[in-house]
Amino acid sequence: MAWYIDQGPDSDVMISSRVRLARNLEQYAFPHRMDAQTARQAADEIVKAFFQDDAERKRHYLLVDLDSLSFEDRLALAEKRLISEDLAKAGDGSFHRAMISRDESVSIMINEEDHIRIQSMQAGLNLEQAYDAAKQVAAILERELPVASHDKYGYLTACPTNTGTGMRASVMAHLPGLAMAGRIKDTVDGLIKLGFAVRGHYGEHSKSQGNLFQISNQLTLGISEEDLINDLKRMLQQLIEQERGVRRELYRRQPLLLEDRVMRAFATLKSARLMTHEEATELLSTVRLGMALGLLPNLQPADVNRIYALIGPASIQKAHGQAMSPAERDSARATVVRDLLEPSGA
Amino acid sequence: MAWYIDQGPDSDVMISSRVRLARNLEQYAFPHRMDAQTARQAADEIVKAFFQDDAERKRHYLLVDLDSLSFEDRLALAEKRLISEDLAKAGDGSFHRAMISRDESVSIMINEEDHIRIQSMQAGLNLEQAYDAAKQVAAILERELPVASHDKYGYLTACPTNTGTGMRASVMAHLPGLAMAGRIKDTVDGLIKLGFAVRGHYGEHSKSQGNLFQISNQLTLGISEEDLINDLKRMLQQLIEQERGVRRELYRRQPLLLEDRVMRAFATLKSARLMTHEEATELLSTVRLGMALGLLPNLQPADVNRIYALIGPASIQKAHGQAMSPAERDSARATVVRDLLEPSGA
Repeated sequence: MAWYIDQGPDSDVMISSRVRLARNLEQYAFPHRMDAQTARQAADEIVKAFFQDDAERKRHYLLVDLDSLSFEDRLALAEKRLISEDLAKAGDGSFHRAMISRDESVSIMINEEDHIRIQSMQAGLNLEQAYDAAKQVAAILERELPVASHDKYGYLTACPTNTGTGMRASVMAHLPGLAMAGRIKDTVDGLIKLGFAVRGHYGEHSKSQGNLFQISNQLTLGISEEDLINDLKRMLQQLIEQERGVRRELYRRQPLLLEDRVMRAFATLKSARLMTHEEATELLSTVRLGMALGLLPNLQPADVNRIYALIGPASIQKAHGQAMSPAERDSARATVVRDLLEPSGA
Repeated sequence: MAWYIDQGPDSDVMISSRVRLARNLEQYAFPHRMDAQTARQAADEIVKAFFQDDAERKRHYLLVDLDSLSFEDRLALAEKRLISEDLAKAGDGSFHRAMISRDESVSIMINEEDHIRIQSMQAGLNLEQAYDAAKQVAAILERELPVASHDKYGYLTACPTNTGTGMRASVMAHLPGLAMAGRIKDTVDGLIKLGFAVRGHYGEHSKSQGNLFQISNQLTLGISEEDLINDLKRMLQQLIEQERGVRRELYRRQPLLLEDRVMRAFATLKSARLMTHEEATELLSTVRLGMALGLLPNLQPADVNRIYALIGPASIQKAHGQAMSPAERDSARATVVRDLLEPSGA
């Protein structure tokens, strides 16, 4: 199931887990050096190799020709994290493709930074299952295609930081407790010192919004996929306990202050008529904290995740179907949020 | 009926109308020059003259010995505007009394600045009825007591600014439209130039909170009560039209922005767990504006007026029955507001 519909383990702190595997075709230059002719050829081969004549796979995966989508539609896919932001923003005519599972848990990007990028997502902290699904797709492709690898290093990739396993395992963590306690900087510094990478919600270049942090492995070389995932998981379990401890402590010390913030945030989400993406993300953060503290018993983490996934500027635009001013988007976003919170009866 | 339960004419702009008449007993010095013995004598005479043996009056009016009330209880009466803030804050042992009608529309303060201050309140813009009720009480007292007056000047009062009619007619006006349009300063300056006095909500020395303004006549000398009231009323009718026009125009230009503010304010009032008096007053102002624009069809001005009257620090304290910290008051206030908004089903 899609990360934003399902509800996984430790979902009070961990929104989603993701594993990405990079693979390249031996006989072609890396995408940034390919001409259009070769890019088309590579894309065709990869698509053919994946679908073969497997009827079930054809039923379960959707082939998306990204070049034929509008810029906004591509961005909407990126906001649901089904393709990378880089791919969404790349120009047309580069034979960019994506094969996306209908349940939105797996997507295979073609001609992104590498020829093949397999991405697998799960709700909550569930790196193993995400890895298994990605590996299964990689195995299918590797069976059919000559994949570039080196006996000593492992898989070869366009950027040397990915060479080896070609894997990046990451989670989206929600850390409002550590943020309220003023401990985010120390926490992030600590994670970096341990060899993990930490980024804000919207990918590589953005700062955190709504206390969301993407945490991933840095290493790819000289260590197995399983060990990488275990290292990351062990650290995340400590982080989860830290965040839970801080939340409990904050609530114990100032229960009314926290209840007040949570109830105001929830009420504002349910009644505003105009809302920026930034404000929505901040309010959702407070509401998620409230859920974890048991203050909003009728609301589920998945209810909130679904909102996260559908209120980005492009998603709002796409749902609306025509060009919108920022004010129109803020109005449409407020409506989407209200509608999504209504049926829960919370 | 009490101004905060009833709902009078033009209640979209005018919260309440008040007429106050000052009278003094001929044979005694003004209160600020009286000794305790004389103050007691004056108080006894006034109470006796008012109640006589009139059974109905005894049933309808409550005699309150302000000296025997706690400071907080006196302040709570002032927050409901049944006695003046000065009287609430005056020390004990000065034979301060009040006779308050059980419907809270009329109160007679004894040994305030003058020996007798009759105050009559009505919801909305209803100065005539307020004046009639006050005059009726004055007539009863003047029939029984030797009241200080001068053939040429009229009634004599402790402060010369009240000499003549001894009357102050005032309204509590709610002017959020003019405030949002940045026209409050010009409006107030204009009213002052026309000879009216303008003050913020909580009496003489405070600035406006929640866009509430007390507007009253300045003149008391050389003009009849009826003319004073007519002058004030004529000006207020213009002010009401101005405020309504500005509201309509603001809503026409930015309907979503106004709806957004109104819905957020209402939602916050219904869900906050901590609320300062200042924030509550500001949010109520926005909600009142929303009611006037038809955005909150299930809510009545009286619902909001009742909240105004019950959320002052002393009222909250009094309802709670024991000493409270400011945080406890903010918590109790939030509960009172939520409870008062609940039964309306809005």
